[in-house]
Amino acid sequence: MRTAPPLARYRRELDEYLRSLVPDGSPQLLYQMVRYHLGWEDAEGRPDNAIGKGLRSSLCLLTCEAAGGDLRRALPAAAAVELVHNFSLVHDDIQDRDAERHHRPTVWRVWGEAQAINAGDAVLALARLAILKLADEGLPPQTVASAARVLDERTLEMVEGQTLDVSFEDRLDVALPDYIEMIEKKTGALFDCAFRLGGLSAGADGPLVERLGRTGRTLGTVFQIRDDMLGIWGEEADTGKPIGADIRRRKKSLPIVYALTEARSGARDELRVLYGKAALDDEDVGRVLRILEDAGVQRYCAAIAARKKNAALRELGQLELKPRAAAELREAAEFLLEREF
Amino acid sequence: MRTAPPLARYRRELDEYLRSLVPDGSPQLLYQMVRYHLGWEDAEGRPDNAIGKGLRSSLCLLTCEAAGGDLRRALPAAAAVELVHNFSLVHDDIQDRDAERHHRPTVWRVWGEAQAINAGDAVLALARLAILKLADEGLPPQTVASAARVLDERTLEMVEGQTLDVSFEDRLDVALPDYIEMIEKKTGALFDCAFRLGGLSAGADGPLVERLGRTGRTLGTVFQIRDDMLGIWGEEADTGKPIGADIRRRKKSLPIVYALTEARSGARDELRVLYGKAALDDEDVGRVLRILEDAGVQRYCAAIAARKKNAALRELGQLELKPRAAAELREAAEFLLEREF
Repeated sequence: MRTAPPLARYRRELDEYLRSLVPDGSPQLLYQMVRYHLGWEDAEGRPDNAIGKGLRSSLCLLTCEAAGGDLRRALPAAAAVELVHNFSLVHDDIQDRDAERHHRPTVWRVWGEAQAINAGDAVLALARLAILKLADEGLPPQTVASAARVLDERTLEMVEGQTLDVSFEDRLDVALPDYIEMIEKKTGALFDCAFRLGGLSAGADGPLVERLGRTGRTLGTVFQIRDDMLGIWGEEADTGKPIGADIRRRKKSLPIVYALTEARSGARDELRVLYGKAALDDEDVGRVLRILEDAGVQRYCAAIAARKKNAALRELGQLELKPRAAAELREAAEFLLEREF
Repeated sequence: MRTAPPLARYRRELDEYLRSLVPDGSPQLLYQMVRYHLGWEDAEGRPDNAIGKGLRSSLCLLTCEAAGGDLRRALPAAAAVELVHNFSLVHDDIQDRDAERHHRPTVWRVWGEAQAINAGDAVLALARLAILKLADEGLPPQTVASAARVLDERTLEMVEGQTLDVSFEDRLDVALPDYIEMIEKKTGALFDCAFRLGGLSAGADGPLVERLGRTGRTLGTVFQIRDDMLGIWGEEADTGKPIGADIRRRKKSLPIVYALTEARSGARDELRVLYGKAALDDEDVGRVLRILEDAGVQRYCAAIAARKKNAALRELGQLELKPRAAAELREAAEFLLEREF
């Protein structure tokens, strides 16, 4: 995926700041796993450069600027958000049995599950230590405590969302509202966190922070819906995964949840049978894609995404923000949510 | 294990406080796992009372009193310590493939590994939210931030210790200093945390907090050495585990690490062969016990434990603490460290 200019601008600064937070201490293995997962080293500890997109942290910095703050003061918050995101990826990969991420073996595939659990736990602890560094940027202790609370509450919500996601695996009766609750927590909560922390770092008042959080949550939800769509209809060149990848993994993403509840009954039954199988072959994937097409699922998902995106951008437009930075934030959000198939 | 009176005194208050911290929200499954692990419910969600010993949290409260504070102000800190301890137990059980804890199936045995990872993550997030509640007890924001930092730093250390412990599983060449580093982090760090947070909650000054932490760390290390000894020579009636339980699991606890490096070479070689096997039967366990006896391992472990215990109690005796509460703290520590075989 290409990265929009405003999102990419602070990547280097953020990367440097993140590197300063990861100890080089004992046990070597623990911090080697962390550096590997963050893309700075290969599995043998040699320098690598497989860095992730840093979307959530960039949005945090852009929000801080839009709320009138100096983005440097938001670096600890942005780093904390990035680390919480990465903690969840390390554990998700174990839970989903995913063997690869960004075309490299996942941490558990290299070092085993037991050590990968430790790696994720360490990244979460580092996230917490990062947010407390807001005090070094001159933020008042009260604001630092608020920021830490936001980070913890949103982390807990994210774990709630992940629990729902895992529990959906064995279910064929996931209702649309359950799915929406799941992604609002699993993905929306951390976008909410990024926007709120951007606002808090800028010294924004309570109501503005609250509205920024709500906007972020909606954008995160749209981001997840787009991600679900890419997982089914995205081209390998863009997603790094073959077409229908999420079908093969029998992931209960929005298109499937919708079709399982809303397609005509014959198609629904066929889909239930297919998703009841232990593994799907190419032919099965083709059948699922046809069922989704007949039921107009792509159109439905695009419509939900567009509606939510417009609501979020409208809300963003009503906030009292610095015009130039707010336009950039808007541009970044539009870019994220218009990724093409 | 029986619990000494000063340790048991606050258990009810702490239990009530802990219960107030665990949400009753969605997803039900997540908080059901948490309540089950904490001993309040059985696996079907019916009330249970399998509560743990709460040692670390009780020590935190006693330390607060000894440092001249009102223990109620330390409840959020004690709860945070207890939750961090329990987060680590949930993840450790997955990592060690332990099927039972306190005579009940472990969380991963009931709900699977993926959901047990989530349960542990949630308990850690709840610990963080707990420590921030020190602000509600009237502690100044600066102190709350210090307490949060202590909790996070010690949590990270604990994960470092757990990483070492897991990495020792495949090694037969663990040196004694490596083992000591491991338990100082895996167990010592959270005792350090309990004592420091007790001091901070009482408003103690920096040097006293620092010395309390050091004392706690040493006591935690002794506690672990005693635990290692009980895992080999403890009676089932006291430990809930058959004699030699840790030998059967081929755990690299202090007695084994010592014998693998310090026994005479013939015995050492025999031990290496035994610990290189995939599984140990009753006869193997008997041979290991004889090797340990011949090498005087129990005496050696008891001597280290006694030396460290005396150092910690001497340090405790030198601190400026409230005499009555300090005597209780001392009594509790002695009790913990004199558990009989």
